[in-house]
Order: sequence, then structure tokens, then C-alpha cells
Amino acid sequence: MTVREALENLEALEAKMYAHRHAMSLMYYDAMTTAPTGGSEARGRALKELSREDRAALIDEKVRETLLTLDAARGEISEKAARQTQMLLEKLQDAERVPADEYVKAVTIRNRAETVWHEAKAKSDFDMFAPHLEQLLEIEKRLALYRRPDKDPYETCLDRYEKELSISQLEEFFAVLRAELVPLIQAVGEKPLPKDITGTFPVAGQRLLTDRLMALMGLDRRYCSVGETEHPFTDGFNKWDVRITTHYHEDAVLSSLYSVVHEGGHALYELGVDDDLQFTCLAGGTSMSIHESQSRFYENILGRSRGFMSLVDGMLRDIFPEEMKEYTEEDVYRAANRSLPSLIRTQADELTYALHVMIRFELEKNLFDGSLRVKDLPGEWNRMYREYLGVEVPCDREGVLQDSHWSGAMFGYFPSYALGSAYGAQMLHAMKKTVDVDACVSRGDLAPVTAWLKARVHRFGRLKKPAEVLSGAFDGESFSAGYYVRYLKDKYTALYGL
Amino acid sequence: MTVREALENLEALEAKMYAHRHAMSLMYYDAMTTAPTGGSEARGRALKELSREDRAALIDEKVRETLLTLDAARGEISEKAARQTQMLLEKLQDAERVPADEYVKAVTIRNRAETVWHEAKAKSDFDMFAPHLEQLLEIEKRLALYRRPDKDPYETCLDRYEKELSISQLEEFFAVLRAELVPLIQAVGEKPLPKDITGTFPVAGQRLLTDRLMALMGLDRRYCSVGETEHPFTDGFNKWDVRITTHYHEDAVLSSLYSVVHEGGHALYELGVDDDLQFTCLAGGTSMSIHESQSRFYENILGRSRGFMSLVDGMLRDIFPEEMKEYTEEDVYRAANRSLPSLIRTQADELTYALHVMIRFELEKNLFDGSLRVKDLPGEWNRMYREYLGVEVPCDREGVLQDSHWSGAMFGYFPSYALGSAYGAQMLHAMKKTVDVDACVSRGDLAPVTAWLKARVHRFGRLKKPAEVLSGAFDGESFSAGYYVRYLKDKYTALYGL
Repeated sequence: MTVREALENLEALEAKMYAHRHAMSLMYYDAMTTAPTGGSEARGRALKELSREDRAALIDEKVRETLLTLDAARGEISEKAARQTQMLLEKLQDAERVPADEYVKAVTIRNRAETVWHEAKAKSDFDMFAPHLEQLLEIEKRLALYRRPDKDPYETCLDRYEKELSISQLEEFFAVLRAELVPLIQAVGEKPLPKDITGTFPVAGQRLLTDRLMALMGLDRRYCSVGETEHPFTDGFNKWDVRITTHYHEDAVLSSLYSVVHEGGHALYELGVDDDLQFTCLAGGTSMSIHESQSRFYENILGRSRGFMSLVDGMLRDIFPEEMKEYTEEDVYRAANRSLPSLIRTQADELTYALHVMIRFELEKNLFDGSLRVKDLPGEWNRMYREYLGVEVPCDREGVLQDSHWSGAMFGYFPSYALGSAYGAQMLHAMKKTVDVDACVSRGDLAPVTAWLKARVHRFGRLKKPAEVLSGAFDGESFSAGYYVRYLKDKYTALYGL
Repeated sequence: MTVREALENLEALEAKMYAHRHAMSLMYYDAMTTAPTGGSEARGRALKELSREDRAALIDEKVRETLLTLDAARGEISEKAARQTQMLLEKLQDAERVPADEYVKAVTIRNRAETVWHEAKAKSDFDMFAPHLEQLLEIEKRLALYRRPDKDPYETCLDRYEKELSISQLEEFFAVLRAELVPLIQAVGEKPLPKDITGTFPVAGQRLLTDRLMALMGLDRRYCSVGETEHPFTDGFNKWDVRITTHYHEDAVLSSLYSVVHEGGHALYELGVDDDLQFTCLAGGTSMSIHESQSRFYENILGRSRGFMSLVDGMLRDIFPEEMKEYTEEDVYRAANRSLPSLIRTQADELTYALHVMIRFELEKNLFDGSLRVKDLPGEWNRMYREYLGVEVPCDREGVLQDSHWSGAMFGYFPSYALGSAYGAQMLHAMKKTVDVDACVSRGDLAPVTAWLKARVHRFGRLKKPAEVLSGAFDGESFSAGYYVRYLKDKYTALYGL
């Protein structure tokens, strides 16, 4: 096979895989926003078949030869083609290393575990889920060892979401957070809790607010739509078709507002990837935590800043003049930054959020190295919530069974949430060297901020590895949790007068 | 290949084709309801690839052997497998008869023609579209001759939408309609036009009306959702996931109401197909006109009847008490049955609708047999509208350029709209032998009507050929336009006191 032929084959493979990805993502998006509930099993049949076809498109002798030909010629081909080759080859080899019967077994265990988890959560019954979690851990450890026989299985799991992230790096990261944030949270807890924005905010008005927020963020509605769903998420098929979602609660106007800003941050990443990476495996975010760094940058760093809240205050007063009469601009700012240790990760505030993640990381690590047994998991969960957050877990539904991740065997995913926040804080530090972020936000002009992020992060998609992207976004510095801790300390010290 | 192996291959082929169909239909549905406008080109890439894969799944040596093996064994296999084999073999042979370069050429011409048609319609400029229509006619005639060298090309086109329908049958059908309906329409035209329902009906209330209508029709929301779009349509992925759509006009409350009832009729067909035909080529309606017979049965025969309008009147008064104050129940019934010859097919009333179709059939037939040249088409269009409907066509946008069908090479599609109405009227005649339709509708119980249609039409999907289904639904009688003419004459004579 010549290099030219191999490049043509690569293009054909990418076209096929793009079509499958687009179709499967759309089925997921539709299921979460629009589809009638009764169609899930039938949709499952179509998804299973498309995913089978997608696997067959990659695990193929000709594809293997194509990728090996290009890998050998990586000095002669474009940076883009070389990176595509590398990513697809990794994916192929990863799939090839796992015996087919083990792969099928893992899918079966996961499917069953997901079903049982839903029921166990509804009944708040961990014992029901425990044997499935044991099976999941066992098979995922085995799969990890097939993939990287020389590596700690948990590290292999982490690697799926965050390339080349080691357990010890994370231990160090969370140790800093624990040491610095636990006392800060305690100090904040001794101060009076700011009042919340209560009252009824009709959905029609909240939809107008979404329009204004998306305009403020520069989200072009020709390429980015907004849907409604139970748990907001973002899906990007390509840079001309990105979907954010939100959920309107009439009694909690800030809830949808922050869903829109968070998901809008994810969307800006997808919308900002270079044109010529589209329809290939290089479109989209380079890692889970860097994706999360963008959403959290908009949601927290910009979105809960004083300048941003002043703009939001104006919008709220404009759309809901009656409902807003009893609140000052200061009330709105402080309500957006209420901090209170709580039980549920997805509802946690900016300050306490990382500790929820830290607890999950510790538990996953201990489950994988055998120092924690599944039957002891709920007790350990509850103990850690008491120790780090000072809250008592009343039942497993609001404790160990709250997240879906483990039932889907997504071990190693959680740390990316906390890393994303920390990356964002360090990007802010680098950005401030050339952009007057506060001034931009105050005058409602987010374009310079987004342009900076696009130039350093978005445009590369997966062309550059996470470490390379971070290096550019940190102005050459290496990652340090210190920026994140500093950011939180400064913000909360001022807010709560510590 | 053994018969058992062939049956397994058939199942695998159907699973694959189902997945492609589901994915492509969903992309279409999403594009029409939700997708941001800027994503159409990118979606086109995915659609092109999936359609290529779908073609490749069918046009394959092993598939050919599978289908021929099953065809030879049709005495030993199930009725279902035999019918699947027959339909897929027809599709395969149909595709194989067209040379690949001619097929690609046709797709290219169609794509260009569709783009030009949009612009030509906007500018009301037929000359712009004319050369493309000439190319379309030329290539479609050639394709038809590849497919059936011994058959009139227009008949081959008709056959794509309505198996075994001949030109002479349609000529006879439309001759009856012309002779009977033209004088009836003229007589109605001499009577005063009933008043319309005017005023403003907020969308929120119309959405409630949709809920009530869907409940009345027995459309289970677990399996049938309703979306909003520009031009309403129905899409059914399988019987557990059917999507109807509507368009709310605040100044025309009956418009969305009849979209919901019409699309609901299509949906009941899809929802009523037997379980064991799902995920195969036998799920869905057996022909375009039989599908249309179901939608028009609900929309017109039931939906514009006195009993149904009495129910609708109650709903309208309930939801819009203020807006409805100035109308009586009789006003509502008569407004739903206003008849007035007009220019636009999709807005035509029940009585004049079939003549719009007749004109298109005559013109298509003459374009295909060469007796009409493309350059003379607008003049001929306008002459026929004057002669049969008594209206002057002011411009091509409201005349010959109004429909998208020709730009997509869907020659032979139009007749199914009129046939559907006529089939519905004959089904009503057969149904009335055992079901007191008027009494059922008056008491708001459509279940016996739907059950009759399900037993005679819906459940078979494509397991039975159109002619077999019609024979069952007509109680063994052959088709006669007389039932349709009688139905219209009786209804409009009473309504307008002729």
C-alpha cells in the first residue's frame, strides 16, 4: 500500500466513523430531549447495530495496514494526518488487545448494572447494587490489564479520560485541595449564609434570559441550538451543529442560568475547533478535563464574577421586574456564590465541589487496589462526607448511589471535573497577562476572553495532546493546584469577609 | 448456502438496514424540527455516507445469494420471510439494473435541481428552473427504462409509489372526478361562503388542544410525540417511536388542529403494524396512497364530520372561552368545511383538493409522453387551473413552482394523494356495515373505528401487497371512485343546501 493510497483510505475511514458518530450522538441527544419514552429499547437495537458497524469499520485488516503504513511514514505526512493515525492506531490496538468474548461480557455486565443501579437508587438499596459493582470492578480491572499489562489498572482507567495522568499526580493535587479547602470551607461555614433568590420565574421569561445569555457569550444560534432536558448536557456533531440543553425550574431561576453558561462554555470549545479538523477524530475537545475547564471557566470564573452578575442582574430586572423588586444587585451576586456543604455533587457550589470529587477519587483508588471492599463502600463514603464536608448522609440514594458513573463502568472519570476547575484558574492567571478580564466582563464584551481561549485551546481540537494544550494555555508553566487554591481563597475571603 | 443460513443472513441484513433507516429518518426529523440551520451541509455528509453504507449492505454478492436461496425456497419459509425476500430482491434488482454512473448522474442532477428550484420559487422565475426540469425528465425516463425496459417510463415512476398502478386506471379515476366534481364545485361556488374562525388563539392554548386531540385519537404519548415544524409531517422509526409534527398559527386555530388530526392518522397506521414486522422492511405503510387514506380518513371523513366538530367545539370553548364567544357550534362545523377554489394544493379544502392532483397527473403524463414541452408547462398549468378550478394564476410561485416534488424527481407521487381520499371513502362504506361510525364519533369513542382500520389495514404493514390490503378493506369489492364522489356529493349537498 502506498502512502497516497493509505491517506485515501484514512479519509474514507474517517468519513464512515464520522457518520456513525453523528448518528449515534443524535440518537442520544434526541432520547434526552424529544423522543417518546417507550422507544428506548427499539433505539437500543439501532445503536447496537451502528456501534457494531463502527467497530467493524476500525477493526479491519486493511485499516490496520493503512494505519501502519502511515505510522511508518509519519515524517512525510501532515501533522494532522500523523495525529489522526496515532489516535486511530491507539484505538485499534486497544480494541485488539481485548479478547472479543471479554469485551462482550463487559458490555453485558455494564448493561445489567445500569438497569439495577436505577432501581437500587430509587429504592436507596446499596445491597442490591453491590454484587453488580463487584462484577464491574473485576471485569474492568481485567480489561485494563489486557490493554496495558504493565500498568496499574486504575491508571489505565484514568488514561481513558485524561491521557498520561498518574495516580500520584492526582494524589498530590487532591492533597493540596484537602489541606487548603477544608479549613476554608469551615471558615465560610461560620459566617451567615447569604439569602437565596426565591419566588416564581415563569419559563417563558427564563427562555428569554437564555437568549440573552447566549448572545452575551457569542453563541451563534445558526450553529448552536438550545434544548430542554432533565440533566443538562452538550452534544457537538461538528462545529456547525452544536446542541446545548438546559432545564427550567420556575422556583430556581439561577439553576437554568448556570446550566446555559456551563453548557455554553462546552459549546464554545466545539464551535472553536479549526475547520480542517472537522469530520475527523481530531474534532472536539482534547480531554475531558480540558473540556470541563472551559465550561467551568464560563460558569464560575466569569459567570459568578461581580461583573458578570451585574449584567445578569440587569437582564433579570428587565425580564422579571416584579419578581426582582425585593433583591439588590449585591443580593444577586451573593446568591450566585452561596457556599454550603451538601450531599449531592451536581448541586454543589463552586467552593465545595472539588471535595465531592476528591472523595470519589479516593474511593475508586481504594476499590481498585483492594484496600476497600465493595461491602464497606457506603460506610466509607458516609465517613468521608462527615470528615471533609461535615454533612451526615441520610441514605444511599443521596450518598453512594447518587451518580450514574460507576454503574456505567466509568471509573477514572470523576477527577476530570476537579482538574477542569483548577486548569481554568491557571488559564485565568495566564490570560490576565494580556487581557483585562474584569474590564471585558464588566462592559459585557466576552469576545477578547473567548478569542484568547480559542487561540490557546479551542482551535486545536485533538490535534495537540492535552499536555501540549495546557502548556500553551499556561504560558509554558507546568500545572499547579496553587492557582486554583489562590483563586478560591481570594474570592471567598472577600465575599465572606474572612 | 442453506436455507437456515440464508434466514440468518436475512436477519442480519434487516438489522443493519433498520439501523441506517432509523438514523437517517432521525436526522431528517431533527433537521425539520430542532437542528440549527447552519448544520445542513455537515449533516449532508453524514447522510451521504450512511446512504452509501446502506446501498453497500444490499448490493452485495452474499446478499444476492441469500435472497436467491430464500426465493427458491419460498414454499418452505414463513409468509413473512417470503415477503421480505420478495421486497428486498426487487430493491436489489432495481438497483442493479441501473448503471452506477447513471445513478450518480441522477443524484447530482436532483441535488442541483432542488437548489435551483428553491431559488426559482423565491424569485417566481420558471425559466430559471426549466433546463433543470428538462434534465430531470430525461434522466428519470432513462432510469425508468433501465428498470423496466418493456414498460412505459411514467408507469414505472407510478409504480415506485403505488405498485402495479397503470396510467389507464388513473385516467379513468380522474375522468370520473372531473366529470362529477367540476359541476359540484361550481354549484358550491354560487352559494355564500361560510364565515371563517378568526381572532387570536395563543400557542399555549393550541398546545393543550393538541393534547386533547391526541388523547381523543388514542395516540399514546409514550410511543408518539408531537414536534413543531414549518410543514407538518410524520416520521415513524418503529411502532414504539412515532413522531408527528404540527405548526401553530395564532391567527388560524383550525390549521394546526387539522395538521394534528391528519398526521395522527398517519401515526395510527405506523403504531398499528404488528410487532413481529418491526425492524424489517415490512414495517410501515404498504403504499403511499394507503398511508394517505388513513391520514385523510381521520382528517376529513372523521375530522370534518358533524360529530367530530361538536367535540372540537367543546374543546375550543373550554380552552378559549373568550375567543369563541362570537361563534356557534354550527359556525365551527361550517368553517371546517368552507370550500373555495384556490391556488395552493396544500391549502386546498376537501372538495377541491383532488382537482389540484388531477392537474398535476395530466401534466406529468404529458411531459413523459412528449406531448407537452417543458417550456409550455406554465401556460398549460395556468390554463387547467382556469378551466377546472376557475382561478387565475398570478405568478409561477403560486402556480407551477409551488410544489417541491418535481425538483426531487418524485414524478408519479401526486396521484397517491387523491387515491388516498377515494380509498378512505370506500373504506368508510365497508366499515359502516359493522360499525356505527357516526354514533362512535358523536360520543367521542374512536376506538371501534381505529380497531376496524387496524384489523383491515394497519396490522399488515407491508406483509400484504396494496391490492390485498385494499380488497380486505373494501370487503372484497374492487376499487371504485363512485364511493368517493357519492361521499362528497352527499356531504356538500347537505352543507350548502344544493
